Amino acid sequence: MSSELLHPDRLFPADPVIRHVAREIYEDIRELPIISPHGHIEARWFAENQPFENPSALFISPDHYVFRMLYSQGTSMESLGVPPASLEVSIEHDPREVWRRFASQYRRLFRGTPSRLWIDHALSEVFGIQQPLTADNADEIYDQINISLHSPEFLPRNLFEQFNIEVLATTESAIDELKHHRTLNNSDWDGRIITTWRPDSVTNPQHPAFVHDMRWLGEITRKDTHDWREYIAALRIRRQIFSDMGATATDHGFPTPFTTVLQPDFCQELLTKALTGKISSEEAELFRGHMLTEMAQMSVEDGLVMQLHTGSHRDHNALVFSRFGLDKGCDIPTGVNFVEGLKPLLNQVGNSPDLTLIVFTLDESTYSRELAPLAGHYPALKLGPPWWFHDSPEGMLRYRQQITETAGFYNTVGFNDDTRAFLSIPARHDVARRMDSRFLATLVCEHRLTLEEAHETAHDLTYRLPKAAYKL
Amino acid sequence: MSSELLHPDRLFPADPVIRHVAREIYEDIRELPIISPHGHIEARWFAENQPFENPSALFISPDHYVFRMLYSQGTSMESLGVPPASLEVSIEHDPREVWRRFASQYRRLFRGTPSRLWIDHALSEVFGIQQPLTADNADEIYDQINISLHSPEFLPRNLFEQFNIEVLATTESAIDELKHHRTLNNSDWDGRIITTWRPDSVTNPQHPAFVHDMRWLGEITRKDTHDWREYIAALRIRRQIFSDMGATATDHGFPTPFTTVLQPDFCQELLTKALTGKISSEEAELFRGHMLTEMAQMSVEDGLVMQLHTGSHRDHNALVFSRFGLDKGCDIPTGVNFVEGLKPLLNQVGNSPDLTLIVFTLDESTYSRELAPLAGHYPALKLGPPWWFHDSPEGMLRYRQQITETAGFYNTVGFNDDTRAFLSIPARHDVARRMDSRFLATLVCEHRLTLEEAHETAHDLTYRLPKAAYKL
Amino acid sequence: MSSELLHPDRLFPADPVIRHVAREIYEDIRELPIISPHGHIEARWFAENQPFENPSALFISPDHYVFRMLYSQGTSMESLGVPPASLEVSIEHDPREVWRRFASQYRRLFRGTPSRLWIDHALSEVFGIQQPLTADNADEIYDQINISLHSPEFLPRNLFEQFNIEVLATTESAIDELKHHRTLNNSDWDGRIITTWRPDSVTNPQHPAFVHDMRWLGEITRKDTHDWREYIAALRIRRQIFSDMGATATDHGFPTPFTTVLQPDFCQELLTKALTGKISSEEAELFRGHMLTEMAQMSVEDGLVMQLHTGSHRDHNALVFSRFGLDKGCDIPTGVNFVEGLKPLLNQVGNSPDLTLIVFTLDESTYSRELAPLAGHYPALKLGPPWWFHDSPEGMLRYRQQITETAGFYNTVGFNDDTRAFLSIPARHDVARRMDSRFLATLVCEHRLTLEEAHETAHDLTYRLPKAAYKL
Repeated sequence: MSSELLHPDRLFPADPVIRHVAREIYEDIRELPIISPHGHIEARWFAENQPFENPSALFISPDHYVFRMLYSQGTSMESLGVPPASLEVSIEHDPREVWRRFASQYRRLFRGTPSRLWIDHALSEVFGIQQPLTADNADEIYDQINISLHSPEFLPRNLFEQFNIEVLATTESAIDELKHHRTLNNSDWDGRIITTWRPDSVTNPQHPAFVHDMRWLGEITRKDTHDWREYIAALRIRRQIFSDMGATATDHGFPTPFTTVLQPDFCQELLTKALTGKISSEEAELFRGHMLTEMAQMSVEDGLVMQLHTGSHRDHNALVFSRFGLDKGCDIPTGVNFVEGLKPLLNQVGNSPDLTLIVFTLDESTYSRELAPLAGHYPALKLGPPWWFHDSPEGMLRYRQQITETAGFYNTVGFNDDTRAFLSIPARHDVARRMDSRFLATLVCEHRLTLEEAHETAHDLTYRLPKAAYKL
Repeated sequence: MSSELLHPDRLFPADPVIRHVAREIYEDIRELPIISPHGHIEARWFAENQPFENPSALFISPDHYVFRMLYSQGTSMESLGVPPASLEVSIEHDPREVWRRFASQYRRLFRGTPSRLWIDHALSEVFGIQQPLTADNADEIYDQINISLHSPEFLPRNLFEQFNIEVLATTESAIDELKHHRTLNNSDWDGRIITTWRPDSVTNPQHPAFVHDMRWLGEITRKDTHDWREYIAALRIRRQIFSDMGATATDHGFPTPFTTVLQPDFCQELLTKALTGKISSEEAELFRGHMLTEMAQMSVEDGLVMQLHTGSHRDHNALVFSRFGLDKGCDIPTGVNFVEGLKPLLNQVGNSPDLTLIVFTLDESTYSRELAPLAGHYPALKLGPPWWFHDSPEGMLRYRQQITETAGFYNTVGFNDDTRAFLSIPARHDVARRMDSRFLATLVCEHRLTLEEAHETAHDLTYRLPKAAYKL
Repeated sequence: MSSELLHPDRLFPADPVIRHVAREIYEDIRELPIISPHGHIEARWFAENQPFENPSALFISPDHYVFRMLYSQGTSMESLGVPPASLEVSIEHDPREVWRRFASQYRRLFRGTPSRLWIDHALSEVFGIQQPLTADNADEIYDQINISLHSPEFLPRNLFEQFNIEVLATTESAIDELKHHRTLNNSDWDGRIITTWRPDSVTNPQHPAFVHDMRWLGEITRKDTHDWREYIAALRIRRQIFSDMGATATDHGFPTPFTTVLQPDFCQELLTKALTGKISSEEAELFRGHMLTEMAQMSVEDGLVMQLHTGSHRDHNALVFSRFGLDKGCDIPTGVNFVEGLKPLLNQVGNSPDLTLIVFTLDESTYSRELAPLAGHYPALKLGPPWWFHDSPEGMLRYRQQITETAGFYNTVGFNDDTRAFLSIPARHDVARRMDSRFLATLVCEHRLTLEEAHETAHDLTYRLPKAAYKL
């Protein structure tokens, strides 16, 4: 399906020679199944398989890319219906009003952004909308989407199948009961949705839920999480449960990539301080740093792929955080040092063929300086795709241009959509496929790669590598 | 007007498809009036409206881009007639000799630099010179320029009009008496030249003139600048005077973007130390950091747009500094941290719709990592154009490529020429218009933007955005 | 000569207009003699002029680019015949087996890497091999190379001449006896191979051989290297000996570009600590920092060009280091600060017309932020070409794009191959010539440079600049 909104050659370079080759490479991979090994889709949607609520609840209020841009230009988050964290915040409850506010600014503010690509793709490919969304047609398009949402073919499971998703990984807290995954595993629907074990709230003493979640971790594993050895045992138990439910990976989101190796006695000391809220920032960093090495060691043992997302300064805006809580668009990247940071961990387990450690960065200056040389050396280390703000056409080009010459293609792992926005999944994978095709086509036209090799590499990047790296 | 020196398609990409679209977009904006909201042109020139001295005084001795490159290749600054700071330095006084030295190296050394674009543009468009400047025609071209300079149409006010400048902002010290702006305001010439309030010498304890200028600030405002509250009141008075004279903005040039919020008692303590020369480097940084937040707060109140230029290590070369003084080409960019640095200020006033804070960087690694994510979130924050060493074709491309996907176009503010070289103003704006047209044309040809949108965006970047952002 | 492996237009952009101009520029410089002013070729090969051992000893076991990529994908260094540092490590001794392992992965893993360009170039241009190397033809190609290696035309001196090398600089330790250079100087072969003085093992207290080499330095110069003044005198003696043998340059490889100027008494104190192994990390950094300034001062006096290679975190992988020793692919770049680091040195000697200091970086974020502004100002400072991981097509483009606008072409020094892989020298220079031609052609087609200027600049970058900068 195509439309006025989506040119079939979008994102390909204007040069007719490269465009021709890019198109040929892309045509060969465009229909491949989607492998989505990391993201934040809710398993509940597929377990319950109920209609999505309304266009605004789908496109606006949960999408931090969308409301942060509108907020930066003076539209309040209240008026966009963003769910508040505080009872004192009152928000717009009419989704149609929210939609109108968005529509009136959409085409202008989002020019040149990936959000525009994703939203236009969803409007066109999922809902069959042919005209650009503006203030004038906001109501009409709202109605059209709304009607669709309540038809059976737009139920979550049907969309999952229509999107040709072969496997989708969600992300759950280490102590999540995995109720929805259990429902899915016991259902007769054969869509493959697996969980990912994310233990930040029980490995980062500065996580707001640390004390609460540590207590709960102890209860559900029947271990005394005040005791270092039992705490470690409790984590192993939870990993096993996730693994048994289908998880193939863990994920760790910490401020920095600092790692270290500490003695058990000192770990016990830090744990005690952490649980009594008496841990300093420096000690918390030490604890986190040791826990990463500990997690890597467990991955060597149980085979779960380890993902590491670092370098985001969370909740930079105290006012917005106090009113709307976590993940509300005021997370800002910071500089990181992988060379020093990962050294203790890599020296402990980086030479192990039994570990797959996938690292992501928001600091593009580390691509050619740190990450490509590290991944081009350590057997355990692989580079995750361009992440978050860099999950964009220019970001993808920079990634390949700055990484490939040192790390090659085969120390990367294909694409992650890493999204909460289910409808954007096909769009995001399509952008990645187009940009990889474009990059490969340029190499072909500059006689740095044969066309045959480009085809094989495109197939690898799209399908084989993510399946292999994530053991799917 | 065009010439051998200036190809009409210069700076457009070779690809014929993109070039065609770039040209079309450019043609639509090339004649728009120049908005020059930040720079270092002397108001005196227009107040007095006397002929410019000679070609060397116009093109060489005041242009740090020019003499730094010549100096790096072994030509002494003395021989280029750069005005010395020390009585012991004797310089070349024959402007023709200076011109010959420059001419003999110009075409070779400046290949691939923006100075070459600017100077060729001025020679061709302002003086009608058709041949490349070389050692052979140096004298001839010197004479041709010299004759022009003494004809009425080359008087400053006439050039201002010929350049189609709608408004030009100069920059004056917080304690400047604004004599020339007063003259201009009282004249019957209707060229619009406004001042900008730059208080570094009374907000940075490490500024060489700090103690002197603080005394003078006290005298002209009749406040005791030894007293924190009176000092703050004195600054408010000066802001008001500048505002009354037409200023719409302030500008702040500090080594780092560090900000903080201190208690009044501690501010008083730091102020006392600063005035007695007993302040440490760390304390001076604290003082500056608090003053930025203070200035932002005043901008919220009085509506003056706040500009922040940080990350230049000034006067790196002690020998050159001792002989020639400030601003002599030995300023070198350094890495900066906007995420930590601006956090206190942004948390105090960044959510305010009444503040416009325009931030500039010399550290391009902060574009995608820090500045675009910050500007794409905080309502008060806008990104200034590529600054100084990055005010260049490649610099402009990197800026748009690294900023647009996260901050969009509408959290940027159009172009600043930021120059002391009056004749380069049309050239610099022309380069910016060409590069923006080129960037937009690429988006159009890759089907990421419609041509109609590109036209509107080009118009916004050239004219509407700078007027809106600077309240002009 | 050309082949299926090497397209005559490789590395030129697809755009036919730019490609045409790039080809024209390149044709004019492709046959220029190779100037190789910095690298790690063994002088012994040319002094002894014996056949190279076998294909694997030539292409695989000494090439850290090659075995690091294979290692990152799970092939052990043992199985590739990498010479071990420990007696406990047993390696593959059959070069044919090593070659087969390499061949089976070569075409896939090295896609998009410069190693692929270099190896294909050598296979095709040196050995006349027309087919891509794969598992299937590994034995056949092994035999073909092996036969060639034992024919007279493949003796080192003949290859040197066939490669059209005008001068090749090797790198020797400050205390090397220069036996092979002596042999070469006394031979009737007129290939010009000169040494470079590299004193790291006697200027860096943390160098593993420091104590040993300091003792030896004392013995061969008959100076007491426990005494600061005699130690300095000993270094002068060695510089003179290298200079007399034909060296025109020194080279310094330190972790950071930190420099300082210390008093002699303090230097003596640090020296004493260093020799007794009691020096701290901070003191070692001070010692190194002072020694750089000392070396620069000596270069001012004796005219040896000074090279500085910093920012590599050596031997990141402790396991690989313990088994295989230095230079085995686990060196990783780190962030550096040239602005603060070089300031003391540049303030001491940077304004001197008698010094040429050539600086290299592995941290590309310093190109536009630090190095181009510094080199565009200080007369003594020149920028080395893109180094190591950045000696690649994309790395070269970024280098020119990020440096030229501020430093111009004439504060750079042409290409260095910096290699241990003799057969890759023609390939590496060819890549550099192609990429410079491409960059210049783009400027021509965008009307930023005339074609005539581009031809002259290409000739300068390829031949005149390296000769001038290195005084060859």
